[in-house]
Amino acid sequence: MVARIPILKLYNCLLISIQWELDDQTALQFQEDLLNKIHATDASGVVIDLTSVDVIDSFIAKVLGDVVSMSKLMGVKVVLTGIQPAVAITLVELGIHLQEVQTALDLEKGIETLQRELGEKAWSANPV
Amino acid sequence: MVARIPILKLYNCLLISIQWELDDQTALQFQEDLLNKIHATDASGVVIDLTSVDVIDSFIAKVLGDVVSMSKLMGVKVVLTGIQPAVAITLVELGIHLQEVQTALDLEKGIETLQRELGEKAWSANPV
Repeated sequence: MVARIPILKLYNCLLISIQWELDDQTALQFQEDLLNKIHATDASGVVIDLTSVDVIDSFIAKVLGDVVSMSKLMGVKVVLTGIQPAVAITLVELGIHLQEVQTALDLEKGIETLQRELGEKAWSANPV
Repeated sequence: MVARIPILKLYNCLLISIQWELDDQTALQFQEDLLNKIHATDASGVVIDLTSVDVIDSFIAKVLGDVVSMSKLMGVKVVLTGIQPAVAITLVELGIHLQEVQTALDLEKGIETLQRELGEKAWSANPV
């Protein structure tokens, strides 16, 4: 059985926290699950939090770059958060510059960035 | 390798979405991870979303009941969301009434319930 990454829907954002090294199968399953969930939920934005990921290999880096590009093609804004030094190095060394992707320090700041990007539509049903 | 459930920290809540049937090892690992994360992050509230869980067996039901009791002992408010009919039946038939636990329909409503419980302290760094 392939391990799967849960995707949380909160208002019209999807939140994903990757908290350990992904194996190749899990990464591909995540790619498929995220695109399906974007389609199913009509989400406007996605935050992928990588705070707990210390290192990534070239395959995972490529899958991550791809899933960001694919999500953007589907019309959602993507924010990557918590990219650690070693992960940033791997991404750039592999030529995955993610130039059109917003980044932020942590999940909270990622959601705030997404809200600004979406003109505060993201959190339309504001919890307070 | 034991599959693990990611625990998202958002402001001072921890959010967990269980999106498939847990095996016993994963459930025990989740119990340990959640208690450690409550301790490490000084969270005030926990929302566990079970929307995507169709059925649970008696072992998982017990672990779930235990993790709720343990979390409460540690001083956090727990809200369970998205409990489906079959899961509710299993829990009550096993004598796990979770009487002191708040429940809500979905993750969004769970966070709102938690905020009310915590007197809106939960979302102190409100995103808007």
